[in-house]
Amino acid sequence: MRRTIYTDEHEQFRTLIRSLVQSEVVPHYPDWEAAGAVPKSFYRRLGELGVLGIRVPEEYGGAGVTDLRFSAVIAEELARAAVGFGGVRVHTDIVLPYLLDCASPDQLARYLPGFVSGETMTSIAITEPGTGSDMASIRTSARREGDTYVLNGAKTFITGGANSDLFLVVCRTSRAEGDRRGGLSILLVEADSPGFAVGRMLRKVGLHAQDTVELSFTDVAVPAANLLGEEGRAFEYLTGNLAQERLSIAFAACAAAEAAIEVTRRYVSERRVFGEPLSDFQNTKFVLADCHAETSAARALVDRCLASDADGDLTPVEAATAKLFCTEVQGRVVDRCVQLHGGYGYMVEYPIARLYADARVSRIYGGTSEVMRSVIAKAL
Amino acid sequence: MRRTIYTDEHEQFRTLIRSLVQSEVVPHYPDWEAAGAVPKSFYRRLGELGVLGIRVPEEYGGAGVTDLRFSAVIAEELARAAVGFGGVRVHTDIVLPYLLDCASPDQLARYLPGFVSGETMTSIAITEPGTGSDMASIRTSARREGDTYVLNGAKTFITGGANSDLFLVVCRTSRAEGDRRGGLSILLVEADSPGFAVGRMLRKVGLHAQDTVELSFTDVAVPAANLLGEEGRAFEYLTGNLAQERLSIAFAACAAAEAAIEVTRRYVSERRVFGEPLSDFQNTKFVLADCHAETSAARALVDRCLASDADGDLTPVEAATAKLFCTEVQGRVVDRCVQLHGGYGYMVEYPIARLYADARVSRIYGGTSEVMRSVIAKAL
Amino acid sequence: MRRTIYTDEHEQFRTLIRSLVQSEVVPHYPDWEAAGAVPKSFYRRLGELGVLGIRVPEEYGGAGVTDLRFSAVIAEELARAAVGFGGVRVHTDIVLPYLLDCASPDQLARYLPGFVSGETMTSIAITEPGTGSDMASIRTSARREGDTYVLNGAKTFITGGANSDLFLVVCRTSRAEGDRRGGLSILLVEADSPGFAVGRMLRKVGLHAQDTVELSFTDVAVPAANLLGEEGRAFEYLTGNLAQERLSIAFAACAAAEAAIEVTRRYVSERRVFGEPLSDFQNTKFVLADCHAETSAARALVDRCLASDADGDLTPVEAATAKLFCTEVQGRVVDRCVQLHGGYGYMVEYPIARLYADARVSRIYGGTSEVMRSVIAKAL
Amino acid sequence: MRRTIYTDEHEQFRTLIRSLVQSEVVPHYPDWEAAGAVPKSFYRRLGELGVLGIRVPEEYGGAGVTDLRFSAVIAEELARAAVGFGGVRVHTDIVLPYLLDCASPDQLARYLPGFVSGETMTSIAITEPGTGSDMASIRTSARREGDTYVLNGAKTFITGGANSDLFLVVCRTSRAEGDRRGGLSILLVEADSPGFAVGRMLRKVGLHAQDTVELSFTDVAVPAANLLGEEGRAFEYLTGNLAQERLSIAFAACAAAEAAIEVTRRYVSERRVFGEPLSDFQNTKFVLADCHAETSAARALVDRCLASDADGDLTPVEAATAKLFCTEVQGRVVDRCVQLHGGYGYMVEYPIARLYADARVSRIYGGTSEVMRSVIAKAL
Repeated sequence: MRRTIYTDEHEQFRTLIRSLVQSEVVPHYPDWEAAGAVPKSFYRRLGELGVLGIRVPEEYGGAGVTDLRFSAVIAEELARAAVGFGGVRVHTDIVLPYLLDCASPDQLARYLPGFVSGETMTSIAITEPGTGSDMASIRTSARREGDTYVLNGAKTFITGGANSDLFLVVCRTSRAEGDRRGGLSILLVEADSPGFAVGRMLRKVGLHAQDTVELSFTDVAVPAANLLGEEGRAFEYLTGNLAQERLSIAFAACAAAEAAIEVTRRYVSERRVFGEPLSDFQNTKFVLADCHAETSAARALVDRCLASDADGDLTPVEAATAKLFCTEVQGRVVDRCVQLHGGYGYMVEYPIARLYADARVSRIYGGTSEVMRSVIAKAL
Repeated sequence: MRRTIYTDEHEQFRTLIRSLVQSEVVPHYPDWEAAGAVPKSFYRRLGELGVLGIRVPEEYGGAGVTDLRFSAVIAEELARAAVGFGGVRVHTDIVLPYLLDCASPDQLARYLPGFVSGETMTSIAITEPGTGSDMASIRTSARREGDTYVLNGAKTFITGGANSDLFLVVCRTSRAEGDRRGGLSILLVEADSPGFAVGRMLRKVGLHAQDTVELSFTDVAVPAANLLGEEGRAFEYLTGNLAQERLSIAFAACAAAEAAIEVTRRYVSERRVFGEPLSDFQNTKFVLADCHAETSAARALVDRCLASDADGDLTPVEAATAKLFCTEVQGRVVDRCVQLHGGYGYMVEYPIARLYADARVSRIYGGTSEVMRSVIAKAL
Repeated sequence: MRRTIYTDEHEQFRTLIRSLVQSEVVPHYPDWEAAGAVPKSFYRRLGELGVLGIRVPEEYGGAGVTDLRFSAVIAEELARAAVGFGGVRVHTDIVLPYLLDCASPDQLARYLPGFVSGETMTSIAITEPGTGSDMASIRTSARREGDTYVLNGAKTFITGGANSDLFLVVCRTSRAEGDRRGGLSILLVEADSPGFAVGRMLRKVGLHAQDTVELSFTDVAVPAANLLGEEGRAFEYLTGNLAQERLSIAFAACAAAEAAIEVTRRYVSERRVFGEPLSDFQNTKFVLADCHAETSAARALVDRCLASDADGDLTPVEAATAKLFCTEVQGRVVDRCVQLHGGYGYMVEYPIARLYADARVSRIYGGTSEVMRSVIAKAL
Repeated sequence: MRRTIYTDEHEQFRTLIRSLVQSEVVPHYPDWEAAGAVPKSFYRRLGELGVLGIRVPEEYGGAGVTDLRFSAVIAEELARAAVGFGGVRVHTDIVLPYLLDCASPDQLARYLPGFVSGETMTSIAITEPGTGSDMASIRTSARREGDTYVLNGAKTFITGGANSDLFLVVCRTSRAEGDRRGGLSILLVEADSPGFAVGRMLRKVGLHAQDTVELSFTDVAVPAANLLGEEGRAFEYLTGNLAQERLSIAFAACAAAEAAIEVTRRYVSERRVFGEPLSDFQNTKFVLADCHAETSAARALVDRCLASDADGDLTPVEAATAKLFCTEVQGRVVDRCVQLHGGYGYMVEYPIARLYADARVSRIYGGTSEVMRSVIAKAL
């Protein structure tokens, strides 16, 4: 189907990214997977190309774009090759909005130039061992002592943490009895702070080139000037950008489903079974047609949300709907495409196997499908 | 989600239809269901209101609209009340394009004024007992004798046939050895032709107010002037309008799913189980959220197709995709909404039960889901 | 797959029932559907043949069987022909256990001979307008006055009520503050009692030959001797037999799925599409294979439960599991078999259409799928 | 539900295996996963315990059991801990029947003692790069030269190959024009044969402790005495044992689904969300209840097949039905259980993540779901 959301500028950017992926990602990807992370040098390369600064205001070296369409182009091109940029999505689509919304001019001036160049890669640290997405149970604490916060605690499931330079750490700055949402603040913690340590790298079902680590904080002294926004308002800040964050998962999921169909279409044309191309079997046709239909609907939904976002009126319910639907479609489509590959679909060297292993987390992170259903139900 | 395809004119038309449905359809609907058909008088009422002539050129008394958005408004309003207009969709969305594309100026002048006023309701007769959608097996034959065709045969599954005045009858005018698609023509047969008879009314699982009948032709003399288009080209004519026809099923299916959610949303708010509103149960919320997500995707897809149609570039594959996806969504959504109604969902007086019984045919008529998958697969 | 649960006696009974269905049900079934009920004369015929008394003790004219295998044979044979015996399942599988468990010797002597002969058909009246399966909200009340209860109220969704002679009416005999389960009793109400009336027959999506009616009670004087069991214990009585009741829905659902596969297997062998038997298409084969696999699992589960029941140790959780699984399989299998029939699948004269319309209520009555899930979850 | 297929002997064996898994597998499993294979020493440990010889005749040091129930016990205990025994299933359930059916007394005497002790681990090599399960396209060839076959070619997807000592290699010994099934033979190739090499280890989505390798044969001289059975009959031999092979996948799949439910049941009881145990949410209950229902049906089906197998009359269609149904259930159940774990479900250290990554291949190996559907459809 024709798409109407992209301009020539987006398509030129697509050409850049596609070429970058082919020449600088695909050849090294097995090494990145073995290392469990994208190397820092590649982040700086993305910085050089301007990829990290697209949504950063021009005064800090960025391009000043406000909507997500360039991010969507990146997601589409990564999915085409079944690879990833490690922690970049967290850096540009999740962390950046918090900085832009809450950081002081000093903080922006200090961190954004490095953010744009890839010198200062960022992560966000919310989840703790033994807790899930329920922020009320956060126990990492920051005790104010003069001009400093003394930070103690542990975090887990931190995407991109192995190679990050700056962490947005959600911590408890006061007790907030009876107020589930109160008492939490965000501190900007630099990676070389004494007492801070990156722990073990967690083994995941997929996303093997995107590191996920544990962090620990032992009497880490954080300058009070590194408080992001105001004390006690973390909960409010963290829920302010959920719509864009969820839309970005939705379009990545949709792109992954499209990519799965494309690699499978090629595979079944080449592969012969009992002397006939696999693509000639009615089951193959019907399965791919169903995948196409679901994915077309996902595409229509996502593009409508991207258009809303470009107009500045994407709603949280629209984003939750898109995230729920697209990630469920991704799950079903990728699974059926694996099946059409037979045994090859289970071998990581085949793109479809990576698309499969990577897909499972889409229905979980950025708010599970269950959370999306709750958000939608509240609005009904 | 906001919709962008409708103008003020469409919304005014919606107001008209909504009021018509409430005052002139809903009160009589149980009678229409018992009779198995919409009365002729109601068709004339629709003619008076201009509903039948929307897509008829102005010179024949119509409004000259070429796209399907007014039809979509009608479908949405009928679904809201879980009622139908009998054979009107066949009349305006299926038969009319054949007349406009193929009829001679004389034929148009003779039939279109009655088409617009509701005096001349129309049906199309393709399927025969023992054959399905495979036109190559059509055996109803028309033998040319001077200025007349002598028509013999039988048809079945004819929607709206009980109260139609004019039938487009697909018949064999030559043998066409070796050419599966050749030898078929369309004759315009008036209901009062000697030798023509409307047979028994078929009992269906749903669509109880829309008659479906058998027809028989015994030496019916049809003037040669009633040949539609040219001899032997029926196959080509009948496949020329499939995109719009399928889109019209798609948007009706989408509207039915939306209506099912809406009646269910109301039902679960009012109904209490174990002292609590049914809407407070997590299962209720999650089921409705899933229904909402799937239906939002269907809506996005259909609206994109309606926009393409308004621009004159709807493709057959887009339409097949929309038909496949939307009717499958309708099936799943309506089924889950019945479940939330419990026993009431099985009682025909409840709108959800009618939506359920009516829904099952959407995946079958206008080309089954299997046919849609074949159409899509060919394009992949 | 081979089955091991039936003896020769069951197979002889199967022969009897199959012949009865072919000669005395199928020819009249369209009339029964038009009338909305099975005629009383047919119930007496079943009585003559001993069908109604199978599980009634020998001293009252029955055969004294305690398990459900003969009922399962009946369900299998009815499903084969896509017909039903009206209210018989309620009479023999639901009402009878209450009588056997709770009725006094006098009550048994008065009613069981007619129960066996079909002179005294029975129904059970629990649900009320505006309430569902939540018995705590029952408002039909019985006020004790001397040797009589004065009964007032209304009931709905009463299966078989049009032709029943005796009703087990659940009513409130005391207020029971704070005890959701208390205060309810069961009265045996004869159909000719003054003040009792059968109301309108409800139109359903399917089960057209099984009447479902409303009942009203206006100062109906019921002799105190017609109290079933003890006052205030209705809740306990009504939950005592749920396992067998649910198993009986499970095996009927499984039989319906098997029957749907069988009629579809025959249909696709005979029907030709584009010159080939429909059975030769890969999609047809795969759909039927999936239906077979699911139904085989349902059959294995049901037969295991029937074996447990024959051993007297069927548990409520096993029965709920079987009901949930088998009715969900029935829904999916019958839906896919309709699809393979194309337009014929929507026409009531085809068995598959009746199997479809009848199937929808299986997931609802006897406890919805949601109730089954709750029962199972409690045990996990 | 109670199970009736096991004797005391099976339950004692279960105790042995459970203890072995806890003490000798679980502690080392992360190392085995990192190495990509089970160490040879563990295979010898299994030999010591008698696990490898259960189905080997007593004269060769085995226990002489003929049915699969002990294998089923092993599968259940491995699933409980979400671990595996590497290539043991191939050794005992797939290779052994070929040896018992086709090997000469000399071959049995030479290889079975080592088979039982774990000194001689075995693999089977069928699939080649670029071909799938279609044996007609096998190109590895064995040219007879005097008392020797000279073997050339390559194989892939060889389970357990890294640590195997003996390979059953399917190869072409004659051209067999026009006979898709002819010309193939099986040679017994020892791992230390010159010209034989184990190639790279394939990275898979899951089954990380079970090696899957490529093999290459360059002018490998295989003694003619190592021909298994007769020349040209490989196709026939390889299809002779499919029923048991598929049943063994079915029961492993069923056991994995049961294990997934069990670990999830524990997880949701311990985990709190918004202050409540996750197990108290209605969605959690309903999802687990659905999983339980499907898995109970799978269990009933598998146990019936195991009973048939013990009686010696398991049919290929029954086995295909069980394999299709159980592996589809495994896929759905494990996926939903991952979802209930949230982010933890994606971390390999959690059993559910291993069950998820391992599950995907069940619908593919031993014949894909599509092959099972074809087998079943042929029988319908």
